[in-house]
Amino acid sequence: MNDLIKTSNKFPIPKSMKAWVLGNANELKMIDKEIPLPQKSEVLIRIDAVAICATDLDVISHGPPAMIEGGLPFNKNFTPGHEYMGTIVALGPSVDEFEIGTRVTVEIHSGCGQCKRCRMGMYTSCHNYGLNYGDNDKGHRANGFTSDGGFKQYAINHINTLIKVPDDMTDEEATLVVTAGTTMYGLTELGGLVSGESLVVIGPGPIGLLGVAIAKSLGAYPVSLVGTRNDRLEIGKKLGADYVFNVKEEKNIVQAVKQKVSNLGVDYVIECAGTEQALNDAILMTNRGGKICLAAFPHEQVKINIPHMVINNIYMYGIRGEGKSATHRAMAFMKEKRFDAKLIHTHTFKLEDLPLALKYARERVDGAIKVVLKPWE
Amino acid sequence: MNDLIKTSNKFPIPKSMKAWVLGNANELKMIDKEIPLPQKSEVLIRIDAVAICATDLDVISHGPPAMIEGGLPFNKNFTPGHEYMGTIVALGPSVDEFEIGTRVTVEIHSGCGQCKRCRMGMYTSCHNYGLNYGDNDKGHRANGFTSDGGFKQYAINHINTLIKVPDDMTDEEATLVVTAGTTMYGLTELGGLVSGESLVVIGPGPIGLLGVAIAKSLGAYPVSLVGTRNDRLEIGKKLGADYVFNVKEEKNIVQAVKQKVSNLGVDYVIECAGTEQALNDAILMTNRGGKICLAAFPHEQVKINIPHMVINNIYMYGIRGEGKSATHRAMAFMKEKRFDAKLIHTHTFKLEDLPLALKYARERVDGAIKVVLKPWE
Amino acid sequence: MNDLIKTSNKFPIPKSMKAWVLGNANELKMIDKEIPLPQKSEVLIRIDAVAICATDLDVISHGPPAMIEGGLPFNKNFTPGHEYMGTIVALGPSVDEFEIGTRVTVEIHSGCGQCKRCRMGMYTSCHNYGLNYGDNDKGHRANGFTSDGGFKQYAINHINTLIKVPDDMTDEEATLVVTAGTTMYGLTELGGLVSGESLVVIGPGPIGLLGVAIAKSLGAYPVSLVGTRNDRLEIGKKLGADYVFNVKEEKNIVQAVKQKVSNLGVDYVIECAGTEQALNDAILMTNRGGKICLAAFPHEQVKINIPHMVINNIYMYGIRGEGKSATHRAMAFMKEKRFDAKLIHTHTFKLEDLPLALKYARERVDGAIKVVLKPWE
Amino acid sequence: MNDLIKTSNKFPIPKSMKAWVLGNANELKMIDKEIPLPQKSEVLIRIDAVAICATDLDVISHGPPAMIEGGLPFNKNFTPGHEYMGTIVALGPSVDEFEIGTRVTVEIHSGCGQCKRCRMGMYTSCHNYGLNYGDNDKGHRANGFTSDGGFKQYAINHINTLIKVPDDMTDEEATLVVTAGTTMYGLTELGGLVSGESLVVIGPGPIGLLGVAIAKSLGAYPVSLVGTRNDRLEIGKKLGADYVFNVKEEKNIVQAVKQKVSNLGVDYVIECAGTEQALNDAILMTNRGGKICLAAFPHEQVKINIPHMVINNIYMYGIRGEGKSATHRAMAFMKEKRFDAKLIHTHTFKLEDLPLALKYARERVDGAIKVVLKPWE
Repeated sequence: MNDLIKTSNKFPIPKSMKAWVLGNANELKMIDKEIPLPQKSEVLIRIDAVAICATDLDVISHGPPAMIEGGLPFNKNFTPGHEYMGTIVALGPSVDEFEIGTRVTVEIHSGCGQCKRCRMGMYTSCHNYGLNYGDNDKGHRANGFTSDGGFKQYAINHINTLIKVPDDMTDEEATLVVTAGTTMYGLTELGGLVSGESLVVIGPGPIGLLGVAIAKSLGAYPVSLVGTRNDRLEIGKKLGADYVFNVKEEKNIVQAVKQKVSNLGVDYVIECAGTEQALNDAILMTNRGGKICLAAFPHEQVKINIPHMVINNIYMYGIRGEGKSATHRAMAFMKEKRFDAKLIHTHTFKLEDLPLALKYARERVDGAIKVVLKPWE
Repeated sequence: MNDLIKTSNKFPIPKSMKAWVLGNANELKMIDKEIPLPQKSEVLIRIDAVAICATDLDVISHGPPAMIEGGLPFNKNFTPGHEYMGTIVALGPSVDEFEIGTRVTVEIHSGCGQCKRCRMGMYTSCHNYGLNYGDNDKGHRANGFTSDGGFKQYAINHINTLIKVPDDMTDEEATLVVTAGTTMYGLTELGGLVSGESLVVIGPGPIGLLGVAIAKSLGAYPVSLVGTRNDRLEIGKKLGADYVFNVKEEKNIVQAVKQKVSNLGVDYVIECAGTEQALNDAILMTNRGGKICLAAFPHEQVKINIPHMVINNIYMYGIRGEGKSATHRAMAFMKEKRFDAKLIHTHTFKLEDLPLALKYARERVDGAIKVVLKPWE
Repeated sequence: MNDLIKTSNKFPIPKSMKAWVLGNANELKMIDKEIPLPQKSEVLIRIDAVAICATDLDVISHGPPAMIEGGLPFNKNFTPGHEYMGTIVALGPSVDEFEIGTRVTVEIHSGCGQCKRCRMGMYTSCHNYGLNYGDNDKGHRANGFTSDGGFKQYAINHINTLIKVPDDMTDEEATLVVTAGTTMYGLTELGGLVSGESLVVIGPGPIGLLGVAIAKSLGAYPVSLVGTRNDRLEIGKKLGADYVFNVKEEKNIVQAVKQKVSNLGVDYVIECAGTEQALNDAILMTNRGGKICLAAFPHEQVKINIPHMVINNIYMYGIRGEGKSATHRAMAFMKEKRFDAKLIHTHTFKLEDLPLALKYARERVDGAIKVVLKPWE
Repeated sequence: MNDLIKTSNKFPIPKSMKAWVLGNANELKMIDKEIPLPQKSEVLIRIDAVAICATDLDVISHGPPAMIEGGLPFNKNFTPGHEYMGTIVALGPSVDEFEIGTRVTVEIHSGCGQCKRCRMGMYTSCHNYGLNYGDNDKGHRANGFTSDGGFKQYAINHINTLIKVPDDMTDEEATLVVTAGTTMYGLTELGGLVSGESLVVIGPGPIGLLGVAIAKSLGAYPVSLVGTRNDRLEIGKKLGADYVFNVKEEKNIVQAVKQKVSNLGVDYVIECAGTEQALNDAILMTNRGGKICLAAFPHEQVKINIPHMVINNIYMYGIRGEGKSATHRAMAFMKEKRFDAKLIHTHTFKLEDLPLALKYARERVDGAIKVVLKPWE
């Protein structure tokens, strides 16, 4: 190994690791792969747990990276998975911000640091997104999207993507920090000062459920959760929702929310359902001057009530991922146990059972919400 | 007159004035009307000029106020018109911020000062919008929308709506301040710091054309203007547009803009066309992390490329009117003659010719852009 | 009574009330005073509890309003006291936002709504501050500073100053909302997004102690409290302080904080001691790019390390009171019982015992922190 | 040369260059020095012009880096100078954002891209400031402060520090962009939306004079300039100052400004004098809720009117250098010729005449304001 790279006998690094890689769309196979070395400002992480996100299902079925229009040429041998955590086992040259043995969870994006967005601190909107290959390597990485992800045993991460995990937080819970970071980023962009403000989360998936928890942590009141399944809504209540609404049981969800909260509508909506209906509900239940954060999206163009949005001075934020160090802010609340993120972790599998785990996640088998893989069990 | 109200012999106030009022939709008649008295914090203005805005056409054809969903009960005898200027001829009790004889132009909105939005400085998003009647009077006024407007000879205005007009600015130009204020408000909400940033204005109507001028004044570069008529685009050039694009002459307007400015797209788009096509063009020509301001809107729901917006972390601001004292910022540039707003003023009529003036404005007779009425000629 | 004013038999209003009024500096006497009527947008409150603030001591000893340079002409017969709460017993014309019988606590400032600062939402920086008399009445009120305060049995308040009190919050705790609101305002101005950021509070008076609680509620970590008395520091720990430092026990408080938190310094300092030493400690313990909020101030000019501040790009916010609806945000956390504000309430007196209560507050008799008067006991 | 580095026959690069280097404090000698190679994300610039800044005088007389407390170990052989421009003559690996032959001017700071401040876009407040040596190299550079500067013929620059120079801008004018960028950064931090707002610049040095120009470009009105010498104030007028004040001719400069602008004081002050008197004048002439930007600073602690600042809710920003891409925004206005920055360029010398040039700059010989060196003449 490069002698500027630091390792430790306590964490011996094997020559190769198990890694799932993509073939054609929907083809996944587990192979043995060489373990890469950390470069300047990078570390090598032994992955201790990795969660499955709905976006992983997209990446796997459409070929990576699902998030770039037009696609990229490295379809094959790509490892998806972006919600992972683990233990640092090697430090690249110049890294003294972290120590070997430290448990960390990760953000997805490491920006190029050079484009106008990165220079503004908007590293998740890096203008060199996807440019991390060969001569054209601008240094951008989006692990699990444009560079290899976490459905394997070891990963290289830029130090900008690392968040320290407290000792009393389980591996499984630590994989959820980036999920919580997504709505934290959304609320950051909406202004952040939501204490005492009314807020609705539409869509009780993992992002929506932790969105309830984050909004409550920041003091939002009342926080309403809108969904279609009562079991999910019950979890939302445990995570702090003041009111829950089952759209299937309401004649008019917009009126139901207004009647409960305020006939003017609510100050903020975090839209996590990604359907045309939910988007328009969001617009109609937002009050004059209110703000909507889009944390999910439909796969096609949808009919939107733009007139209502403009007449009522409503702003809509297409938020992507977990930018502006929002994961650190999410971790601050999780570390203090403001809410129990573990409530959304339902199943654990071994790394080799990824296909089964994906099935659980996709089809919500047995009430699955967050499905986690443990690569070393 | 109330002896707390100040008047001056220099500006004698007659008992009655000429005023256009609405009957049923599209019915307008000119009547004699009593001249009202200014209350606390109000002034009486002798209207010297009033411009016609596209929204006036909506108000007249749909009944006021076109801008409130559900409508209001005072359809009849309402005077539309909101882009006016004039001379202060009486001061209400406690007013010492202005003097009789001072020329002023006006903002539309005077907020209630009590709702959560007004308390935040967002008086154009007042939660008591439209509540300015009888026992339920919360003090909100939107002249020409929810309270009587400017197609008449005298008007009452709250001092919060007044902007002083410099001596060397004509009456006609002064009516355009609120138009310039609209894009200034949009740019305020997008962050305001646009110098050196790329920006596109779609739709060379009055708001779009002065949007070019305001964006250039703030230092945006390059500023592109997209439209369908070359004569309007030419005016855009005179107001500072670095590039103009005629959508009818381009195969693909998004590609044309990207080719000229940057293949990544532009930082900001001000959408002033209000069509489905223009909205989606706006989304597709905005770069990752960029922002769109909606200064116009279609009258119905439209199919929007929400996925592109979320994947690219694009924010969309439904801006309404000219909030956050943006008119004052617009006037600052007009006073310094940074651009020649008069370029968009094309026709002048007498007050009694309002029907003809409306026809010019609606049908763009003789290349009409801004049509202005002079109530005293 | 004016028939537009609403009252209720449940809350009969006597003709007169007991009220403490100022004579010359340091002269206070209790008199019988007529109960005023609420005007438009105002309510009449039966004061159920009023706390003593250090600023009240200033107002009483220097003559009101201590907070205006140059002073004002109404020295005599002025009632100080600004941290009060009570029950609404009459509604002025047009008020339907509140009901008779509702318990409320109050902010101090009601802005004029017309000056440039009020129009920006900065009503505590109203440019018509102090102009609330006679012909020059611009509508500004700062109860207990420029208009009559709360050391009496009834008070008039503008609805903008009211915050509803939850049923399970005691009168005494409700008087502390405005204290908590002060640091909430400070953190609002620093940007608000303090979760996971390091923060130091200097000065464990009421504002500093609740500053610790508010900072922790917003997720700041670690929160350090610096003071001179261990009993106060202990209360700080109960309110959430992660570390406490007794300056008397440290050789160098700046080094002690850096050693514990980070040798770079901390992200934010809330300075509540108001001494030259504390101000410079604040500057030296703030990291590059960090921010300092001044919630207290010395009474004279002090020698400040400006070079360190500029070289390190440090910003310093002179924050005054509880602006930008920060009290509502503070109440949001108190309502959810994130911290126990009652820990700083130490003594309760009857209204007639004001002089004794002031002595307790001034001299910290018996460990007094917050001393509360109950006008009806 | 490294074959990943691109060069061009049009711009042949010699083996060595002339460079001024420091010995002990105030010792400067010109030597022959090897020309370094650009690394990843870097370019090699042939320096065509370099201006002298007051801070250079500090660096030379105190040893570099004057801006780091405690100092650094490389006192000797260090080249000062940070206001330079030139022509790109070699591209490091991966650089395709610029071409050989392009004229560029430079910012000083290139942040580490990893610390919390850089991740927020605050690269001039990099927490790894000064860590650019050996094993501890975090990538931070502040050319002319912590890494070699521009009093030589060639320089290495990170691409983040480059701003393209338009063809019709002279070399001399291009060296002034970073000076203009300093107040642009200050105004960025104050909020940026200064059009129509009143503003005072204290201190008509280069930063103050271009501060007037930048403030006017952004629409501030009125802009006042306060100084001690009429010739400088005259230049301020040419750069757009609406009013100028000679402190020597005024009894009370604060009253003089208030009388001219508003008895409430002004909205913004940019303090560029760095004296105790000027700092307190700034505080006293700022209106309630106003903001002060400190673009200069005294060399020792000074007595400051903190009470006035807190009572009036005034914020004070210690701004350091030209952060947040403010140079790009400054260039946007200079490119459009909104003001004539050349008015402050007074003298030009050859590189070998640096000692004489420094004398002109230090002693303001012959009315010197900006003194520029041309290394190739």
